[in-house]
Amino acid sequence: MTLRRWIEDILQRFGKGEIRLDYAINELLKLPYEDIGIAKLDHHREIRKGIPEVIFGQDKTQEDLVRIAEGMLAKSHRFIATRLSREQIETLIQKFPQGKAYKSANIFWVSDKIELSGGTIAIITAGTSDYPVAEEALATLEFLGNPTKKILDVGVAGIHRLLSEIDDIRESAVAIVIAGMEGALPSVVAGLVDIPVIGVPTSVGYGASFGGISPLLTMLNSCSNGIAVVNIDNGFGAGYFAHLIARRT
Amino acid sequence: MTLRRWIEDILQRFGKGEIRLDYAINELLKLPYEDIGIAKLDHHREIRKGIPEVIFGQDKTQEDLVRIAEGMLAKSHRFIATRLSREQIETLIQKFPQGKAYKSANIFWVSDKIELSGGTIAIITAGTSDYPVAEEALATLEFLGNPTKKILDVGVAGIHRLLSEIDDIRESAVAIVIAGMEGALPSVVAGLVDIPVIGVPTSVGYGASFGGISPLLTMLNSCSNGIAVVNIDNGFGAGYFAHLIARRT
Amino acid sequence: MTLRRWIEDILQRFGKGEIRLDYAINELLKLPYEDIGIAKLDHHREIRKGIPEVIFGQDKTQEDLVRIAEGMLAKSHRFIATRLSREQIETLIQKFPQGKAYKSANIFWVSDKIELSGGTIAIITAGTSDYPVAEEALATLEFLGNPTKKILDVGVAGIHRLLSEIDDIRESAVAIVIAGMEGALPSVVAGLVDIPVIGVPTSVGYGASFGGISPLLTMLNSCSNGIAVVNIDNGFGAGYFAHLIARRT
Amino acid sequence: MTLRRWIEDILQRFGKGEIRLDYAINELLKLPYEDIGIAKLDHHREIRKGIPEVIFGQDKTQEDLVRIAEGMLAKSHRFIATRLSREQIETLIQKFPQGKAYKSANIFWVSDKIELSGGTIAIITAGTSDYPVAEEALATLEFLGNPTKKILDVGVAGIHRLLSEIDDIRESAVAIVIAGMEGALPSVVAGLVDIPVIGVPTSVGYGASFGGISPLLTMLNSCSNGIAVVNIDNGFGAGYFAHLIARRT
Amino acid sequence: MTLRRWIEDILQRFGKGEIRLDYAINELLKLPYEDIGIAKLDHHREIRKGIPEVIFGQDKTQEDLVRIAEGMLAKSHRFIATRLSREQIETLIQKFPQGKAYKSANIFWVSDKIELSGGTIAIITAGTSDYPVAEEALATLEFLGNPTKKILDVGVAGIHRLLSEIDDIRESAVAIVIAGMEGALPSVVAGLVDIPVIGVPTSVGYGASFGGISPLLTMLNSCSNGIAVVNIDNGFGAGYFAHLIARRT
Amino acid sequence: MTLRRWIEDILQRFGKGEIRLDYAINELLKLPYEDIGIAKLDHHREIRKGIPEVIFGQDKTQEDLVRIAEGMLAKSHRFIATRLSREQIETLIQKFPQGKAYKSANIFWVSDKIELSGGTIAIITAGTSDYPVAEEALATLEFLGNPTKKILDVGVAGIHRLLSEIDDIRESAVAIVIAGMEGALPSVVAGLVDIPVIGVPTSVGYGASFGGISPLLTMLNSCSNGIAVVNIDNGFGAGYFAHLIARRT
Amino acid sequence: MTLRRWIEDILQRFGKGEIRLDYAINELLKLPYEDIGIAKLDHHREIRKGIPEVIFGQDKTQEDLVRIAEGMLAKSHRFIATRLSREQIETLIQKFPQGKAYKSANIFWVSDKIELSGGTIAIITAGTSDYPVAEEALATLEFLGNPTKKILDVGVAGIHRLLSEIDDIRESAVAIVIAGMEGALPSVVAGLVDIPVIGVPTSVGYGASFGGISPLLTMLNSCSNGIAVVNIDNGFGAGYFAHLIARRT
Amino acid sequence: MTLRRWIEDILQRFGKGEIRLDYAINELLKLPYEDIGIAKLDHHREIRKGIPEVIFGQDKTQEDLVRIAEGMLAKSHRFIATRLSREQIETLIQKFPQGKAYKSANIFWVSDKIELSGGTIAIITAGTSDYPVAEEALATLEFLGNPTKKILDVGVAGIHRLLSEIDDIRESAVAIVIAGMEGALPSVVAGLVDIPVIGVPTSVGYGASFGGISPLLTMLNSCSNGIAVVNIDNGFGAGYFAHLIARRT
Repeated sequence: MTLRRWIEDILQRFGKGEIRLDYAINELLKLPYEDIGIAKLDHHREIRKGIPEVIFGQDKTQEDLVRIAEGMLAKSHRFIATRLSREQIETLIQKFPQGKAYKSANIFWVSDKIELSGGTIAIITAGTSDYPVAEEALATLEFLGNPTKKILDVGVAGIHRLLSEIDDIRESAVAIVIAGMEGALPSVVAGLVDIPVIGVPTSVGYGASFGGISPLLTMLNSCSNGIAVVNIDNGFGAGYFAHLIARRT
Repeated sequence: MTLRRWIEDILQRFGKGEIRLDYAINELLKLPYEDIGIAKLDHHREIRKGIPEVIFGQDKTQEDLVRIAEGMLAKSHRFIATRLSREQIETLIQKFPQGKAYKSANIFWVSDKIELSGGTIAIITAGTSDYPVAEEALATLEFLGNPTKKILDVGVAGIHRLLSEIDDIRESAVAIVIAGMEGALPSVVAGLVDIPVIGVPTSVGYGASFGGISPLLTMLNSCSNGIAVVNIDNGFGAGYFAHLIARRT
Repeated sequence: MTLRRWIEDILQRFGKGEIRLDYAINELLKLPYEDIGIAKLDHHREIRKGIPEVIFGQDKTQEDLVRIAEGMLAKSHRFIATRLSREQIETLIQKFPQGKAYKSANIFWVSDKIELSGGTIAIITAGTSDYPVAEEALATLEFLGNPTKKILDVGVAGIHRLLSEIDDIRESAVAIVIAGMEGALPSVVAGLVDIPVIGVPTSVGYGASFGGISPLLTMLNSCSNGIAVVNIDNGFGAGYFAHLIARRT
Repeated sequence: MTLRRWIEDILQRFGKGEIRLDYAINELLKLPYEDIGIAKLDHHREIRKGIPEVIFGQDKTQEDLVRIAEGMLAKSHRFIATRLSREQIETLIQKFPQGKAYKSANIFWVSDKIELSGGTIAIITAGTSDYPVAEEALATLEFLGNPTKKILDVGVAGIHRLLSEIDDIRESAVAIVIAGMEGALPSVVAGLVDIPVIGVPTSVGYGASFGGISPLLTMLNSCSNGIAVVNIDNGFGAGYFAHLIARRT
Repeated sequence: MTLRRWIEDILQRFGKGEIRLDYAINELLKLPYEDIGIAKLDHHREIRKGIPEVIFGQDKTQEDLVRIAEGMLAKSHRFIATRLSREQIETLIQKFPQGKAYKSANIFWVSDKIELSGGTIAIITAGTSDYPVAEEALATLEFLGNPTKKILDVGVAGIHRLLSEIDDIRESAVAIVIAGMEGALPSVVAGLVDIPVIGVPTSVGYGASFGGISPLLTMLNSCSNGIAVVNIDNGFGAGYFAHLIARRT
Repeated sequence: MTLRRWIEDILQRFGKGEIRLDYAINELLKLPYEDIGIAKLDHHREIRKGIPEVIFGQDKTQEDLVRIAEGMLAKSHRFIATRLSREQIETLIQKFPQGKAYKSANIFWVSDKIELSGGTIAIITAGTSDYPVAEEALATLEFLGNPTKKILDVGVAGIHRLLSEIDDIRESAVAIVIAGMEGALPSVVAGLVDIPVIGVPTSVGYGASFGGISPLLTMLNSCSNGIAVVNIDNGFGAGYFAHLIARRT
Repeated sequence: MTLRRWIEDILQRFGKGEIRLDYAINELLKLPYEDIGIAKLDHHREIRKGIPEVIFGQDKTQEDLVRIAEGMLAKSHRFIATRLSREQIETLIQKFPQGKAYKSANIFWVSDKIELSGGTIAIITAGTSDYPVAEEALATLEFLGNPTKKILDVGVAGIHRLLSEIDDIRESAVAIVIAGMEGALPSVVAGLVDIPVIGVPTSVGYGASFGGISPLLTMLNSCSNGIAVVNIDNGFGAGYFAHLIARRT
Repeated sequence: MTLRRWIEDILQRFGKGEIRLDYAINELLKLPYEDIGIAKLDHHREIRKGIPEVIFGQDKTQEDLVRIAEGMLAKSHRFIATRLSREQIETLIQKFPQGKAYKSANIFWVSDKIELSGGTIAIITAGTSDYPVAEEALATLEFLGNPTKKILDVGVAGIHRLLSEIDDIRESAVAIVIAGMEGALPSVVAGLVDIPVIGVPTSVGYGASFGGISPLLTMLNSCSNGIAVVNIDNGFGAGYFAHLIARRT
């Protein structure tokens, strides 16, 4: 439902006398969300964005986490939580045994209505140490119902490993390319294909990688065209962005 | 033509005896490009990427610039040059009177085969000082043949200016959102729509904007989902990335 | 007029049949502003914020600058433009001879309705080289109608110069304290008074002052209570923030 | 008592012969504070600043902490301690059972004379993970006797949640706006209200948020007017600064 | 075997009808590596680079680590693993008792065919705290079969300790110079010898050494000629680079 | 005259009735300085610090500069101005023909009472490009009346050039060691002598010297004892600091 | 013994035939130090620098630490070790019961020949949390035999606490001023006295203090003259530098 | 001539009575260099390092530059000057018409004894804008007498351009790989060859390339083995380092 339709509906009910002035004003002031005290659940977001509000686990207490998850499940019948600690994941597994946990990615979700649709999304990593971020993207895309294809450990130190996979990558709708250290892989991939490439820098490395600054700068400065970048280690953001592109293909 | 087809073609001509061993080896070693001494023109890129190699004007001499442009025009019948100085633009206008110059964006291109296709791309700016970067995206998309829609000067200091445009934005295939200073506009847009948002930080600002670092970090850390980011002031990169998404819609 | 009143007014006119459905929807979607193509003039801001939209001169063409200024003047009968180049100031002086130009501060404004009101604002500088930023705050406060008091050149290298002025500062409603180099003055002032201190780091200095990063960090880390900070060299922002505090005193 | 009055009093007593020369010199040299060896208790600060010296808990031993707290309590009948470790809070709770502990905010205070006065202060957070910093501001303001209003979890990813609260915010004397990640919320709030907005960046986030640098830069570079900023996670500083503004309203 | 020879071989076998078209295409697309699911083992690298692929231990699970090591051992009869945790080293010692563990350097390797060859490599440290990085270089060079010479604790605070060793250093083929804190040792060494100096900044230090940034910048900006630099604490990289130089001497 | 004596004098004159209460209060509030509007001339500083207030030329107008210089000359009979532009130096030479101009160092001073006293100060540079900073120290010390000794171009790329000068350096009271690029010279000098070494990083260099950050960090992290550091290019500060040490020798 | 004397002595013994050619060459190549394998003990340093080589404890094993300490004690009859871990201090206390341990400062030394001499050194801190760094300076100066005077907790938030101590500070030979957070105290002290001020930034603080970068920049950019700076938290370096100045007074 | 030989020679002449004690001492103190006042010419360097001292043009006056060049030419019969301004180059061309000027590289040298020797050095650039840095390496190597091979414009955006050149690169003794923007080319090259790769980051790029920081970090963090790095834009340093490796091949 568009914002225009929302306003039209209230105006018509007010015009017909179905609702009173005060009520109409308050409706127009307060787009639909539910306040549970500690958090405002944005149920409207699912309509607006095609995905319910994501629960960002970091720094939340166990109690708040469960309360928010229950609230979302009651209204939206599904939820996804990211950046969970080991303890938070265990709590959610016990509380929601029907859910799916990704222990490398620190993600947990519950959903009962997943059907695959849209174009295939290639998830490509430079090294095996980048896998947790790839799994974060994968978990997100499984929740969102996108077909995926994993191409792991094809970093630029052995470029021929990548070259043999290129035709497969070209047939995808979009590629998520994940790399730490110098983060050069997205540039090389984007130089060879004509699909959008989403670069995900990771914090894998040491010394002058500065927790991911090195691959982040690499990807932002790419001399190849067709790359856009998300935050360091942000597999979730890459997955969601890829979903927005692929569902239209 | 895919890489697989390219190899198959050489193998078959070699199998039929149409080409000799040495020639076949060299062909397989050298994918098609032309060496003009100072630069290797990558004519194959147009097939591979859907856009001819872009001429990066910065730090090039006038002579090199013209020589490369002529080489591209001869083979690809079109070219686009970015990051041009005032002098470089004047030279190209004189040399290629059939081309189109964008003097805010410092872009020049020549092309004779533009037809509009694909989904519409919204180009959104926070302030009027961000316009040159928007024009860089616009110039790129006009060269690539995408329909565009400009929504200018809707920064977060007056959020209602944006709200009234939201339905228009939602109907686009993808949004390019350009902002300097604190760079918060992409977050707000992405919170309201379900299309991919490409954030472009600009160097507009002073003091602690540090030449665009401030909006760059803002966009990378967005709490909204559905944003990916390109380099500071990189209107060209945003335009090309948007083109890759929109042409499939 | 509050947002609530605005919505109520439209609903009542719609309820009485004075306006039609389509018109009401559009009104609710579009809070009042005027679109002049290059910029959206936010006339509503004056009601909302007590100051018309500020014209940020940097990177604007002379034509755009004049067009925007004329638009604002026509509706709001006053305007203020900041971060102007020498050329932009000359243009505005010629175009609007009734205005006031501040050549150190690079500010120009036109207004015919200034009456002094609210508490006095102390503008304090560490050194004479910080004066342009002080003038930027001063110009802003003269436009906004606040009484001010200047206390210049009282940096911490000679702390007794400050001590003799402290009682005067304590009687102000708020103090703007401007310092470059190590930027220690706001800490010392805030340790001695019980009024809000707005710290303004300046880019005065060299070497490890890094264009104002040094005084910026100093002010953010102050061990004195009662300091908040604005951007490097942002005299305008400090002036406006002080105005918001002082007008209630 | 102003500094002028302090000097006048000593001079008069000296003039009357009530005090001797040496004593007068020493008095003039030593404004009133008490030296307990490890720390100089600044009892004069309460007169000067309206708040007793704050005890900064970080890096203090348990013994020093208790000794300083006892010293302050004996003279000022109240104290507030911030940045306490879990162990330090437990120690203070046992030692001063009449006090109030805030375990998210790591604050503890003792006071017996709190009366609410001054304008209301709105405390606004972008996400639930920002709550500990909000509680730090809240604890400070409860100690200082200011009425507060909490508006939580209204970040820019769902801007309508904020819009419905705006009229409430506008009626406050000052707003403390707390946000991590991209930290865009203060800009949006300040664009809609005409009260002073104190931005508090938090260290909530990961990757390119760099422990709060991202929201700090965002707030310093805000294109909205009426924002000043305090240190990352500095809820106490924001609370105290807000108190200085609100008590005059 | 060069790439050219590889292609020639396939073409000839295809020309003779020994292999079919499809097979030839796939061979040309896929240079020889083995896919074990989690990682692509690059057996070709040993031919190409003179060293088998290095196992980067950081962030790998125990299971993946052992699986990759076993795969490499089966094909290449040797492997080297770096950046191992204490637990990973213990696991490898138990699994491969024939291997050699370096507990300061966090390196483990298995090899049965080491013969010393090539020029001697001097490994020089500024202080005893830099020893773990020196051991990382040493372990690498022992695996690669290079003669080495250790010159420890000759930092610039006592320059005469270095001067007496200079003639020994000059007779080496290449010098690895390892220093933390201000990292000045490579400059002094390179000013006195005419062999290549590889600078290795270490994270030894505190405060403004910023985890190794200080010696890294020092080495990059050296006023002596003949220095190149590797990543902070990267003893392995320095060792491998020195090996490439020394084996030709 | 100490602060104590100053207060005693006022009290005694007040006690004797030589001055009235109001006058005494004002005296005690206002330690002696003269306000010339744009700047507060701190004549008291010469007594307090042994050097009159320094005129920091950067960002001052020609008029202000001359006015301040005249004010200082009238009272103190000498002045020193630093960080002057080419134009400012010319103005001062014309206005004060009795003064001395240092055109590399951008310093100008007037004084008629210089007598050499105190220990000798060694001024040491790494390269010829560092000379302007050395001249800034030299100019300062000539104004302050210290004997100096110049040892130029003895950088660590040829350490023997330094070694032959070491005995001369050891006989000085203090050494100022000036270096750009990697800035290692102070460490080497301090390792060989037992006098205080003042490190002055310069902005000489390019690339990763980052305008002097590289030598600044080098000097702060020195593994040699006996080094303290001043700001990048701050020859004046080094000279003044050396003067404070040497005049007591 | 100067370097010149050292060389002269060898030449004369060679000239007299007391030593042979080879021996003389080796002597001239090897200035006196002792090699114990892991470290080269620089016994010559005590002659050269007036203090034996300092043992930097960080990252050293317990065994190496004890071995080095024993070696120094045997030759120099005293040693000082800094940056010790809790475990390292306990080991040294057990091994050398005659030594003195400073548990805040993480320093341990053994010496039997301390006599106080030279001018007094004032050690000044801004806050109680800065005490460990002050103790590091104190421990160093007690080892070196300098009289000291402690002035603690006189930070700029209550400037009058400092003012009453100023005459005491002025009578010292040199002042060590230690401050974290904004680090403004050295500027204020140096503005009031004419002795050398050594600024020591500390890592006390949070958020934008960035582990001591904020006070470090403050001190480097001081507008007061007479300040030089050492590394963050480097109380030892400040103490040793002060000793070099004070012993000549 | 080694240092040992140098000392032996003096001792023997002293032993034979050919030189007197004082003279011998001074010789041993002063290794051979010539003092021309402004600079110490290090003629000994040519023996020690195989290249005469390099003249760093930046910040030198025309007079100093010519004087130093003349001094070097008189003794060494050749010189090389780098980082020259346009004016400096013109001066040198006029003064030394027998020399060779490189106007992109800003290098000038005079030499009459160049013979090619040693292994071939490959100079590889990513883009045409990187050419000036390549020319700096080239000019250096022509002065030093190394055979070179240029492979230009083979950046990772079109990886096949590189692949066809790989066999040529593998036959070189060492490769200098020059790249700006993301700087990924050295990683890809080093993954394919077994010769040492010297990475040279350039300042080509804009926005988040931060004047070359981005490619610098990329090269330091390379996941390929066999790379070492020099300063941003330091073609000279790369050339000299390559020369040290190649001359032994």
